Amino acid sequence: MNIKTKRFPLLPAITLIVLSTGLSAAEPIQPVRPVENIDPVLVELGKKLFFDPRLSKSGLISCNSCHNLSMGGTDNLKTSIGHGWRQGPINAPTVLNSSLNLAQFWDGRAADLQAQAGGPIANPGEMALTHELAVEVLASIPGYVTEFELAFGADGIDIDRITAAIAEFEKTLVTTNARFDQWLLGNKAALTDTELAGYTLFKDSGCIACHNGPAVGGNSFRKMGLVAPYQTTNPAEGRSAVTGKDADRFLFKVPTLRNVEMTYPYFHDGEAATLTAAVDIMGRLQLGKEFSEEEQAQIVAFLKTLTGDQPRFQLPILPPSSDHTPAPKPFD
Amino acid sequence: MNIKTKRFPLLPAITLIVLSTGLSAAEPIQPVRPVENIDPVLVELGKKLFFDPRLSKSGLISCNSCHNLSMGGTDNLKTSIGHGWRQGPINAPTVLNSSLNLAQFWDGRAADLQAQAGGPIANPGEMALTHELAVEVLASIPGYVTEFELAFGADGIDIDRITAAIAEFEKTLVTTNARFDQWLLGNKAALTDTELAGYTLFKDSGCIACHNGPAVGGNSFRKMGLVAPYQTTNPAEGRSAVTGKDADRFLFKVPTLRNVEMTYPYFHDGEAATLTAAVDIMGRLQLGKEFSEEEQAQIVAFLKTLTGDQPRFQLPILPPSSDHTPAPKPFD
Repeated sequence: MNIKTKRFPLLPAITLIVLSTGLSAAEPIQPVRPVENIDPVLVELGKKLFFDPRLSKSGLISCNSCHNLSMGGTDNLKTSIGHGWRQGPINAPTVLNSSLNLAQFWDGRAADLQAQAGGPIANPGEMALTHELAVEVLASIPGYVTEFELAFGADGIDIDRITAAIAEFEKTLVTTNARFDQWLLGNKAALTDTELAGYTLFKDSGCIACHNGPAVGGNSFRKMGLVAPYQTTNPAEGRSAVTGKDADRFLFKVPTLRNVEMTYPYFHDGEAATLTAAVDIMGRLQLGKEFSEEEQAQIVAFLKTLTGDQPRFQLPILPPSSDHTPAPKPFD
Repeated sequence: MNIKTKRFPLLPAITLIVLSTGLSAAEPIQPVRPVENIDPVLVELGKKLFFDPRLSKSGLISCNSCHNLSMGGTDNLKTSIGHGWRQGPINAPTVLNSSLNLAQFWDGRAADLQAQAGGPIANPGEMALTHELAVEVLASIPGYVTEFELAFGADGIDIDRITAAIAEFEKTLVTTNARFDQWLLGNKAALTDTELAGYTLFKDSGCIACHNGPAVGGNSFRKMGLVAPYQTTNPAEGRSAVTGKDADRFLFKVPTLRNVEMTYPYFHDGEAATLTAAVDIMGRLQLGKEFSEEEQAQIVAFLKTLTGDQPRFQLPILPPSSDHTPAPKPFD
């Protein structure tokens, strides 16, 4: 559904095109749009589940542990800490704007947010629970029983409902109103000359070939190390693990650059500690370009204009366990 | 300062006594009062620090990890998980209403909230940072530099300011408006007959000797295992570790029973999984009484009326690190 048709139903098509141009529709990056068509009851349930460490074997790790909504939806670690202090294999991508991704995980192995949400719960190196036990735990908590019934209109908790609720909450985690979006929407004072110079460089140098669309990425798989091979000790081979095709080795989902100022460190191995380092490496390995220090600074200045309004909501209060709730087992 | 003198300055003393009686002043438990005289700027800074895992060596553990404000200010584990997945020595007490405690920690070794706050940050088995590094990390984050200056009216970050801010936030974590407090304040319909019977039993059996005052505890050190010795594998000896006196062995701070429905499992070793078990053990070991199942249920029903309004605030958004911020070292 075309939003403009919706908002200006009586205007002829030619007017809409002019309006679109006025809204910088010709730019290869589009503003992040507020979420539509969500179920608020399901969102509230999903928010609780997102913050609930009882979805882990230890009782310590929640979705928010590695996708911390106080910190850009990431843990700001190279790779995450999982059950038993196990080191994760890959950098935790931000959950912010993740509904805009063409698929989930770096290798795209989950089709959507709901398919993703079940993974970490049962991964022995992450939350280390089983789906069966997740259901048993939640079904033993009276507050959740009521809330699931309210959200789904029928009795019963299963893993599909759990992940549907988490996904519904995650859909709300879009970050609108970035300064760059204000500029796209016509406020030309929203960016400084340096930031605009950075955006021009970002387009003219070819960064935009992969980092485009509303999420400034997230919409394609591309090879890490296109012009020159990427050196890393991280064994992840990306998309080929899903497709089985040799041609897909080292293809990773292009990460969103929305809120990139907050989602350090960078790359699938988390080895680029700063935005400047990331821009430098991307230039050399993906574009065959060596950006000058001034150019790096300009691009970094532009990237920082992609920080949007962070999700604002009250910290959820979780319903207490009952006497029958299986206890966490952190040290078993 | 007498609140009633403040509110009714023109009433003669005799009237005040009558009013006080009307407000159940004769009861050994008093309502939790809203926080007064706090510095809102310092509170906002302290809230961020409370949620900031950069105060830990790993970058994973924040104050909120073990004193989770979604879960009654506890982690609902027997003993906490610290740096490197180390098992903590003692059950994490709730941070809710902790400003009402006569001292902090189970053994009272910290005089107040500020003295407490520095402990876990530097404890190798908890957050495992040093105070020096905590200061260095925060001083490298532009958003914090500004906020500390705003809060303290002068440049500079040190551990005293860090802990002062955390303590100021913690002072706001009082839980008012519990059903029991509504009853104390005159709403006699706030409690059921069963709950009232539980309260009467709680007083008549002697629980009230230790669990009294606004926090229903927190105001004395008492021996765990008064009538019969408490059997535990936990080596903690309580107050004697602070005073060096043999007479203080196994004396622990009486925990608050406010929100006790949410702060399971119970006792300093976290070995009582349910309220019913805790009531049963307390009866036998502290009072030499065996409560019947009905009596246990009545007391548990009363205890659940002590759940107050949980702290409600927006999840804080943390200022991002700079290029100069020391990186977390989870796996060193």
